[in-house]
Amino acid sequence: MAKTNGIHVAVLGATGAVGQQMIRTLESRGFPVGKLTLLSSERSAGKVVTFNGQEITVEVATPDKFEGVDIALFSAGGNISKEMAPEAVKRGAIVVDNTSAFRMDENVPLVVPEVNEDALHSHNGIIANPNCSTIQMVVALEPVRKSYGLNKVIVSTYQAVSGAGAAAINELKDQSKAILEGKEINPEILPVKGDKKHYQIAFNAIPQIDKFQDNGFTFEEMKMINETKKIMSMPDLQVAATCVRLPVETGHSESVYFEVLENGVSSEQLKSLLKESAGVTLQDDPANQVYPMPAHCVGKNDVFVGRIRKDLDNDKGFHMWVVSDNLLKGAAWNSVQIAESLIKLGLVK
Amino acid sequence: MAKTNGIHVAVLGATGAVGQQMIRTLESRGFPVGKLTLLSSERSAGKVVTFNGQEITVEVATPDKFEGVDIALFSAGGNISKEMAPEAVKRGAIVVDNTSAFRMDENVPLVVPEVNEDALHSHNGIIANPNCSTIQMVVALEPVRKSYGLNKVIVSTYQAVSGAGAAAINELKDQSKAILEGKEINPEILPVKGDKKHYQIAFNAIPQIDKFQDNGFTFEEMKMINETKKIMSMPDLQVAATCVRLPVETGHSESVYFEVLENGVSSEQLKSLLKESAGVTLQDDPANQVYPMPAHCVGKNDVFVGRIRKDLDNDKGFHMWVVSDNLLKGAAWNSVQIAESLIKLGLVK
Repeated sequence: MAKTNGIHVAVLGATGAVGQQMIRTLESRGFPVGKLTLLSSERSAGKVVTFNGQEITVEVATPDKFEGVDIALFSAGGNISKEMAPEAVKRGAIVVDNTSAFRMDENVPLVVPEVNEDALHSHNGIIANPNCSTIQMVVALEPVRKSYGLNKVIVSTYQAVSGAGAAAINELKDQSKAILEGKEINPEILPVKGDKKHYQIAFNAIPQIDKFQDNGFTFEEMKMINETKKIMSMPDLQVAATCVRLPVETGHSESVYFEVLENGVSSEQLKSLLKESAGVTLQDDPANQVYPMPAHCVGKNDVFVGRIRKDLDNDKGFHMWVVSDNLLKGAAWNSVQIAESLIKLGLVK
Repeated sequence: MAKTNGIHVAVLGATGAVGQQMIRTLESRGFPVGKLTLLSSERSAGKVVTFNGQEITVEVATPDKFEGVDIALFSAGGNISKEMAPEAVKRGAIVVDNTSAFRMDENVPLVVPEVNEDALHSHNGIIANPNCSTIQMVVALEPVRKSYGLNKVIVSTYQAVSGAGAAAINELKDQSKAILEGKEINPEILPVKGDKKHYQIAFNAIPQIDKFQDNGFTFEEMKMINETKKIMSMPDLQVAATCVRLPVETGHSESVYFEVLENGVSSEQLKSLLKESAGVTLQDDPANQVYPMPAHCVGKNDVFVGRIRKDLDNDKGFHMWVVSDNLLKGAAWNSVQIAESLIKLGLVK
C-alpha cells in the first residue's frame, strides 16, 4: 500500500531524455507521488518542470537532497550513480538505477517486472534497470521460456539514436537536413561520444554501440548477453548479439532467432502465447502487412512482437521481430514499473 | 578473347537506377564494347545517354533490337525479362538477367563469379544475376566454406531503399525533408510498390521487403535462402533470413551468423582468409573503430567485411558484418563481371 501522504519520489537526471520521460510516466500512470524532487547537474539546475500542473524547480543533486526520499529514479550516467546511489540508500531511499553501474553486481537485482518481479524482495537499497535493448527482448522471450523452454538466442538490433541521448537526436536531425541540402557534415557524437572517431548516422547504419571489448563484441552487445542471463536466471543460456545504430529517432527493433527445448511447437502456438503475455502487444498478420515498426511504437509502453515464424531447417528454431520505445519500456516506464512493483510488494517503508 | 571489333552489348532498362550503373560500370571497367544498344520502355525511350564520350539515344525494347547483340544485360523487371529474354537468345545474344525471373530455373546458371564462375559453361543463353542481398553474403561466405566448411547461416539484413528503385530513393528524400519540417507525409512506394499498404521509411525500419509467402517469410527472405543454396551448390545448407528496409539510400548491410564444420577455427584465421579473398575488402579493426558501413561503400565494387568474432558459446559459430553497394556488386557490377567472365572463358561467340 502507498503511504497515506503519497510517496516522495526523486528523479536524478530530470532534464535528460529519459528523465523527462520518467516524469511524464509518473504523471500518466497516476503514480501516488506525495512529493517530487527533481535533481540534475549544476548545468541544468534551475530549470522549471511542470508535474501534474505544478511547477517544480530542478535542483543540484547533492547527497542531502535524498533526505526523506522513498524512491529515487536515477538516469544521469554511470559515474553519478556510483557516487550518489550509496548516499541515497544511506538516507533511506530505494534507488532504481537506469545506468549500467550496478547491473551485474550480484547484490543488486536487475529487474524487468514481467520477468523477475520477485527479485525485488532481495534488494539492498539499489535496483538496476536493464539496458533498453535487453528489456524488450526478455519481455518477449520469457513467456516462451516458461511454456517451451529456451536454449539459444541470436539477436541483431536496429537501435534508435535517442538511446545515446538528446545530443544524438539533434545530431541525426541536423545531419539529415544538411545531407538533404547537399551541405558538409561534421559528426561529433555518434557512434559513441567518448570514443575516438565519429561517423555519419543520417542515411547510414553504424555497427557499433558503446565501446569495443577485447573479444570483439561491444559493451552494448555484452550487456545484452550478460543481462539476459541474469534477468532470466539462466546462466547457461546461449546468447549472442550484434548491435547496430540506425537513423531512427526513437524505437529499437530486434531481429531475434531463438531455439526452444520442446519439439513440435508451432508458430501459431507462439503467437497465441505472446498475444496473452503481460507487456506484449502482438502485431503479426503478414497477409495484411501488420508487423511492428519503430515509427508506430513511440509513446507506447508495450513491447511489440511480430513476424513470428518457424525456422525452415530447425524444428526448435524460431524468428521474430521485437520493437519497443527505448525511452519508455527500455528506460523510463520500466523504472516507474519497478517503483509500482515495490509499492505492490510492500517494499516501500 | 574479345572479338576484333568489340562486343555488341545491349542494356535493357537503361534509364533505371541499375541500368545507369551498368552503363557507368561498362565504361569504368573499360569493357570491350564495340557497339552499345540502350533499350527501355516506351516511356523512357528517346532519352540520350553519354557513353565513353558518345551520345546514345535510348530505344524502345522490341525483339528485333537484339539482332547482332552478343551480350544483353537485363534489368527492367521480371515480366519484361520473361518476355524478352527468349527473343534475345533466339537472335544469338547471351542474356545476363538481373531480375528474379529465371534465378531458380534449373537450366539457368545463377552466378557470382567469385563463387561459381564455372557454372557459366552450362548456360543455355540465359544467365541469372542473383538478388543483391544474396550476392554480397555469398562472396563473404564462399572462402569460409572452402577452407573450413559451412553448415548454417542466419542473416538479418539492413537494406537500402535504392534496391526498390529510383522512386523509392525519392520517397526517402522527400519524406525525410517533410518530417524534418514537421509536415504531413503520404507513403506511396515502400515497402513494396505493388502491395496493399505503404509505410513511412524515413526515420523508420520496415521488416518487409517484397511480398509475404504463406510460410511467413517474405519473397526477399526466400530469395536469400534459395539462391544461396543454389549459388554455393549446397542444397542442404541451413539458411535463414530476416530482411529489413532502412532509411539508407544505397548500401546493404548484413549481420551474419554462421557455423563452420571444423573445430578450433579462430576469428584471426577468418580475418586472414577474407583479407586475401577475391572481391572482399576486410575492414576489421575494432580498436580503431574500423568496420564497414553503407555510407562508406557507395561507388565501390567490393564486398566489405568486418566485426568478425567467434560466438561465445559455440566453437564453430561466428558473427560478421557484411556491407556492399547494392547497385554495384549487388546488381550492375556483378552483371558486368559475368559478362567479363563470359569473354574470359571464351563463351562469347
